[in-house]
Amino acid sequence: MRKVAVVGVGQTKFSGAQEKTGVELFAESAMDALSEASLKPKDIQALFLGNCLGDFTEGQGMVQAFAADNIGAFGIPANKYDGACASASMAIRDAFWWVASGFYDVVLAGGTERAATMGTSLATRTFAMFSDSRYEYPCGITFPGVFAMLAHLYSAKYGIPLEKLKEQMAVTSVQSHRYGMLNPRAHFHKEITIEKALGSPMVSQPLQLYDCCPFSDGAAAVVLTSEEKAKKLTNQPVYIIGIGQASAGPLANQQEYLPRIRAREISSKQAYEMAGLTPQDIDVCELHDCFSIASLIAAESLGFFDFGQAGEAWEKGEAAIGGKVAINPSGGLKAKGHPIGATGAGQVYEIVRQLRGECGERQVEGAKIGMTDTLGGDGGTLCNLILQRG
Amino acid sequence: MRKVAVVGVGQTKFSGAQEKTGVELFAESAMDALSEASLKPKDIQALFLGNCLGDFTEGQGMVQAFAADNIGAFGIPANKYDGACASASMAIRDAFWWVASGFYDVVLAGGTERAATMGTSLATRTFAMFSDSRYEYPCGITFPGVFAMLAHLYSAKYGIPLEKLKEQMAVTSVQSHRYGMLNPRAHFHKEITIEKALGSPMVSQPLQLYDCCPFSDGAAAVVLTSEEKAKKLTNQPVYIIGIGQASAGPLANQQEYLPRIRAREISSKQAYEMAGLTPQDIDVCELHDCFSIASLIAAESLGFFDFGQAGEAWEKGEAAIGGKVAINPSGGLKAKGHPIGATGAGQVYEIVRQLRGECGERQVEGAKIGMTDTLGGDGGTLCNLILQRG
Repeated sequence: MRKVAVVGVGQTKFSGAQEKTGVELFAESAMDALSEASLKPKDIQALFLGNCLGDFTEGQGMVQAFAADNIGAFGIPANKYDGACASASMAIRDAFWWVASGFYDVVLAGGTERAATMGTSLATRTFAMFSDSRYEYPCGITFPGVFAMLAHLYSAKYGIPLEKLKEQMAVTSVQSHRYGMLNPRAHFHKEITIEKALGSPMVSQPLQLYDCCPFSDGAAAVVLTSEEKAKKLTNQPVYIIGIGQASAGPLANQQEYLPRIRAREISSKQAYEMAGLTPQDIDVCELHDCFSIASLIAAESLGFFDFGQAGEAWEKGEAAIGGKVAINPSGGLKAKGHPIGATGAGQVYEIVRQLRGECGERQVEGAKIGMTDTLGGDGGTLCNLILQRG
Repeated sequence: MRKVAVVGVGQTKFSGAQEKTGVELFAESAMDALSEASLKPKDIQALFLGNCLGDFTEGQGMVQAFAADNIGAFGIPANKYDGACASASMAIRDAFWWVASGFYDVVLAGGTERAATMGTSLATRTFAMFSDSRYEYPCGITFPGVFAMLAHLYSAKYGIPLEKLKEQMAVTSVQSHRYGMLNPRAHFHKEITIEKALGSPMVSQPLQLYDCCPFSDGAAAVVLTSEEKAKKLTNQPVYIIGIGQASAGPLANQQEYLPRIRAREISSKQAYEMAGLTPQDIDVCELHDCFSIASLIAAESLGFFDFGQAGEAWEKGEAAIGGKVAINPSGGLKAKGHPIGATGAGQVYEIVRQLRGECGERQVEGAKIGMTDTLGGDGGTLCNLILQRG
């Protein structure tokens, strides 16, 4: 197995509905990523692209073929990955392996999505397809409902009164919005307070508006090469040193583990073992905070905090920049935004720039090891990547 | 790179609309494939699944996670591949490489689709998403129109009068229906004649009803293992010895090549080179006959017949069992059926059984080398696999 480096990254601003197509959004991020690496489209040997709702939002299936052609990467193999919110992370994981194993030397990976274009109401209903179609969403369950139930389970399991948990959840959102203010490519640039979060409209009890991330439009791209190539292309390579992926079925089949997400514990174990690291080694992590409760659940299963303790950790600043582990310095899904099929690539974009020390006011000082964590559906797909400064 | 063997295959009957879900159809084929290999679901290390319309037909996104869970392959990484009709071939190609490169020893690949469930009219309109969404289908083009245009181009380029070409196209359909009669898992068991084909309703001039394949429901599964494992599991391993994949953009961008499909010529070259073979070495080929004209175009670009000569070759029996190369002995998409995201796996199912000598009345005697060819969209994705009897 060869070492694999990220030699270029690009990301559009994540935003509300706008007019560019998914193909055009991806081109914007891909050109930035190629430019950073001083590569041309004809240097790319394969494309691995996350996209989840493109057929519904734009009527564009098989978007990867058009995305490759559109940037001038003619005739290359182009794969699309669809694992709900984890799509782009799956694409990068696969891209990693095709380079690590020696089949390709230079590949482009990433994701693109126009989730905001659908509007929140339609997107929520459509996106419910990524839960089980036989038994779950025919009952009327959409994802806010799923994560609301997880919040109740979390409260009961760890003996944290719901009112206390709601405050802890609000702290995660306040932190994310604070960091989003510092990220020019974030969807939201709006500071919020605990009071504002707790006074916001109820979505699905106990989750209120500011417990929920938005649907965004956006794209992100990553160029991966072999170590040998990377040394010629950049003096700031970032290596992918651990990968993990796991799946799970309907929520009912996950019940013995909930509110923990079983697939995350399998996936992150794979990534840590491959990297030869432990949670204590992670300096910065972009994790899947689709809802505030999801942040707490993720940070615990990734091993950063004890079970039932994550809320307190956030309150103490242990999840902040300068704390034990900097979580979501980009603003996370909550403030940076959530263009479903592009989200994993957006996480890698942030981690790579953090490890290169390019993040200005939101820089995690001295960050050497970063991690991404992307959850698709209600535990259906989980993908983790661990990256290291070269 | 290690040798990779197919040690088990399974396929449901391809059919019109029926009541099983995509997850259930896949389970049926997967259990047959595992059973052939004397393996259990817990032996599977990863799932690679083609599925294309599951969100539209059943409202089931991320079907791969539920498919893995449903057969008892808990927690494994599960990827979905969506490249229109080429989806399952892409899944098998990727599965091949994850085993060949040594990451996994035992993987399950395949595809599942309920394309018939939508009904032909809705499926045709929905499936048009797999052409370019900006400039092609907003003009009203669906795939019958695309292939009708290719037939006109073919007629003009090679100087074959349209009436003559229509007869040659009808010959391909008659042959496919004849073989479909011999395949118990085919969608259609109905012999047709040239006269019947030429008298059938016009779909998109010059393509008539019997020039077009159906949309089908169905699934197929393939178990791949390392050579070392395979030797313990079966005395009839079939090795994948060549893979190829390529993409292309909107038809307008392919114009200098049409009616040839550029992606096919790139993809098949990769597969032949990897296998160290030429078209003359192929005994049996399952190729992408979504329309009768597509058969002719494919057989020429794969190198079996000279350009402009495929129709005559079919008329002379050179594409029949016992001819120069046996094309679509399963009945092909035309008669075996076309469950979009499962089609590539159905092709591999047939080739493996042919190479094992299990095909009864439609057996290609002494077949040692087989090939699959799957086209996604109007040239957007092309995938080829070459298999060899062990």
